[in-house]
This record gives sequence, structure tokens and C-alpha cells, in this order.
Amino acid sequence: MKIYTVFVEPKTSGNIGFLARSMKNFGLKKMVLINPGTLENDAYYQAMHAREIVQDALIYDSLEEFIEDKEITSIIATTGTPGGSYNVPRIPITPEELGKTIQTNGNVALLFGREGDGLYNHELELADVLVSIPTSDEYPIMNITHAATIIFYELFKNQKNYPVDDLDFATYEDKKVLEELTNNIISKLDYPEHKEKQAKIIAKRIMGRAFIAGREAQTLRGTLKRIDKRIDSHEE
Amino acid sequence: MKIYTVFVEPKTSGNIGFLARSMKNFGLKKMVLINPGTLENDAYYQAMHAREIVQDALIYDSLEEFIEDKEITSIIATTGTPGGSYNVPRIPITPEELGKTIQTNGNVALLFGREGDGLYNHELELADVLVSIPTSDEYPIMNITHAATIIFYELFKNQKNYPVDDLDFATYEDKKVLEELTNNIISKLDYPEHKEKQAKIIAKRIMGRAFIAGREAQTLRGTLKRIDKRIDSHEE
Repeated sequence: MKIYTVFVEPKTSGNIGFLARSMKNFGLKKMVLINPGTLENDAYYQAMHAREIVQDALIYDSLEEFIEDKEITSIIATTGTPGGSYNVPRIPITPEELGKTIQTNGNVALLFGREGDGLYNHELELADVLVSIPTSDEYPIMNITHAATIIFYELFKNQKNYPVDDLDFATYEDKKVLEELTNNIISKLDYPEHKEKQAKIIAKRIMGRAFIAGREAQTLRGTLKRIDKRIDSHEE
Repeated sequence: MKIYTVFVEPKTSGNIGFLARSMKNFGLKKMVLINPGTLENDAYYQAMHAREIVQDALIYDSLEEFIEDKEITSIIATTGTPGGSYNVPRIPITPEELGKTIQTNGNVALLFGREGDGLYNHELELADVLVSIPTSDEYPIMNITHAATIIFYELFKNQKNYPVDDLDFATYEDKKVLEELTNNIISKLDYPEHKEKQAKIIAKRIMGRAFIAGREAQTLRGTLKRIDKRIDSHEE
């Protein structure tokens, strides 16, 4: 899947830079600018370590021209105004649904724009998929690069090379050991029987809800062992 | 649940504005600025229709001062550098996990900062929950308001799933007591100094991530007191 991020008629160069940076944060590289006017320094400055994305951006006069030239198979437009009584039916999916359902080996265009005005109806009509970000009714209009970031994030989140996958979470065995150690300590605390049971359940729940990491489990195991030993040595 | 969005030592006023706008997009209203310097016009300009959030922002000299003043029960920090061999173990959850698990009727602080430098270790140590956004290895450092937007979005997305305000959660005082009891016990376990500190932080994090209920806090307090007493009686 080849993904183009398309910014339609950007007004401020700074936003081009912000967009480029966010693209690179989520592994996207191909930027397309439709009728951008003159790029000022801010486009490069705000891109930070993603300047090459701005430098390599493809520039077209119109959206239609780009779509034809790159043989785009899926056009995905983000709209801040879902539903409503427009000419074009705007019944969107959520970014999450997009991330979960998108799969193609074709060329995908993610459309964003314009600052202030959004995409025009003739552009929305080109879209295969409309996406709308769930926001507060009080102020639904997002900054364009913030909206784009959420779309990138949801697309990236659902890729298989999710980077937190190699973080180390406590294993089933780790958890069993922690539970045994905890129960063992609580058994020695001279609780009345029903209270002992409750204390064990609550300790287990708290540990269970915490998404304990492997390294954390190791440290906690050490702490519990030390506690247990101190209690034992008292009993002897 | 009362949520404060805390920007630690903002450098550019524009980012304060971008943050305020994004907050309002996702229904958040309380902004806190730690040691912000002079606010320039850009803070109000970039906020667009969220200027009142910037105008009403609370200002403190230090994070610690704010936490004490507002009796914050859950401190959630976003870090761009998960894992690694730091003094402080930085083993984070994802924004999605945060959105799904957060539940409290207490006062929550979402920490962001600093542009460029991120949060310092002593600030990260205050956190109950660390969150890391999955990004490309090639360029993981996000613009701060873009990162914040993803956190806001995930919290907002999951809002409907937690109508839990009337559930009984551990209070600020409860948490202080649990932390003190835990630290007190760990201090007696003959740890080498740096390991003692690590054990305390990990105990705090595990309790922090579990969003402990009031009744659970009561039981856990009882368990910790019994443990402490057993260790003490041995020492006498």
C-alpha cells in the first residue's frame, strides 16, 4: 500500500512543516501539495527532522490532476462536518474504523484541507471514504495538522510493526509468582479468615489492573520476597 | 473526574494556543501552565475559538506546587522515550490503554512538556501512569501539541464507556497514606539505596495505574499496616 498525504491549498507554510513532521512520526513519506503558493521558510523550520518530506513534496495544480497522474485507487477524505444537509451525503466512519479496515495494495490518498474552509463538495465527491474525528459539539473544528495526526496515528496503530509489541510485559508465570508471594505474606498477617480472603482478592485485583511490565514484576517480586523474609525471621 | 492539562515550561506561546484549541476540541477546559514566562499574542491567536482556556489558565512556579494545591490523585505523563536504561524505569502504557482504563472521581493531571527536552526525571517520578505514543523508530519525537491531541482523542473516544463518577475511588488522602505506608515498609527492607528508590517508584506506579477504589484502599491500608507492624515487632 502506497500512501500519499495530500494537503489541498495550504495557506500557511508552518502547517506544511507541522504536517511533514507528523507524517514522519508515523512512517509516512509522500507529501502532495495542491496549489500551495510560495513555500516560506516556516515550512522547513516546523518540519524539524522531516525537512526532506517538504523538499520532496509533489506539487499539482488540482486534485484531479494528481489522482490521475498517480493512479490513486482509494481516496480518503477527512471532514469536520459530518452529516448535515449538504448536496453530498457525508456519512463518515471514525479514524479507528479506518485504521482497522483499510487494506489495499493500491495507491491511497489521504486528503486534508483547507485551513478554515475544509474540502469543497467537488473534492469530497471524489472520496471513496469519508472520515470524521469524534470531537466536542461545542468546538468541533480542529487544527488541520492535529486532525491529520489522529488519522496517521490510527493507521500506524493498526500496522503489525506496532513498536510497543517488543516491550516486555509480565508473563503469566510472573503473575502467578507475584500472586503466590502476596497470598503467602497475607496469610501470615493474623487476619480473621474472611478478611484474609478479601485482602488477597484486592491485592490481586490491584496488580491485575496495573498492566505490570516484566521489569516491574521483577522488582516487585524482590520487594515481596524481602517482606516475606522479614516476617519469617520474626516468627522463628 | 476533573482533568487538568498541564504544560510544563512552555517555550513558545503558539504551542499554548494550539494546545488550548485541541483541549476544547475534546471537551477539556482546565489548562495549567508551569513557569511559562511571558505569554505573547500567539498564545491567543493560535487558540482560535479556545481563547478563554488560555485566559483562564492557572499558573504555578512548580509542578509540585500545583499537585499539592489541587490535590491531584492521578498524574499521567506522556513520554517520548519508553524503556531504555534510565534511573527511573519508564515502562509506559499506550494512549488506547489509558483511554480504556482511566476511571476515577478524583483530580487527574495530564502532563506535557517541555518542547525539545521533555519532562525531567524528577517530574516523571511523580507520575502514576506513563503513556507513550507508538511512533516510527526513525523519528519518534512528536510535536508536543500533536502528542497531546492523541491523548485527548483517546480519552474522549472512550468517554462513553465510563460513567463512573459516582463510584467510590480512593481520595488524595487515601493515596498519600498508601504511598507513605508503602515507602515506610520498603525503607525497612535493607535495600541498597538506588534499589530502594526504584522499588518505591514501582510500587507507586503499580498502585497508580490500578485506579484503586475507596474500599480497596481501605483494605490495602490494613494489609500494609499489618505488614509494617510485623516488621517493626521483629526489629524491637
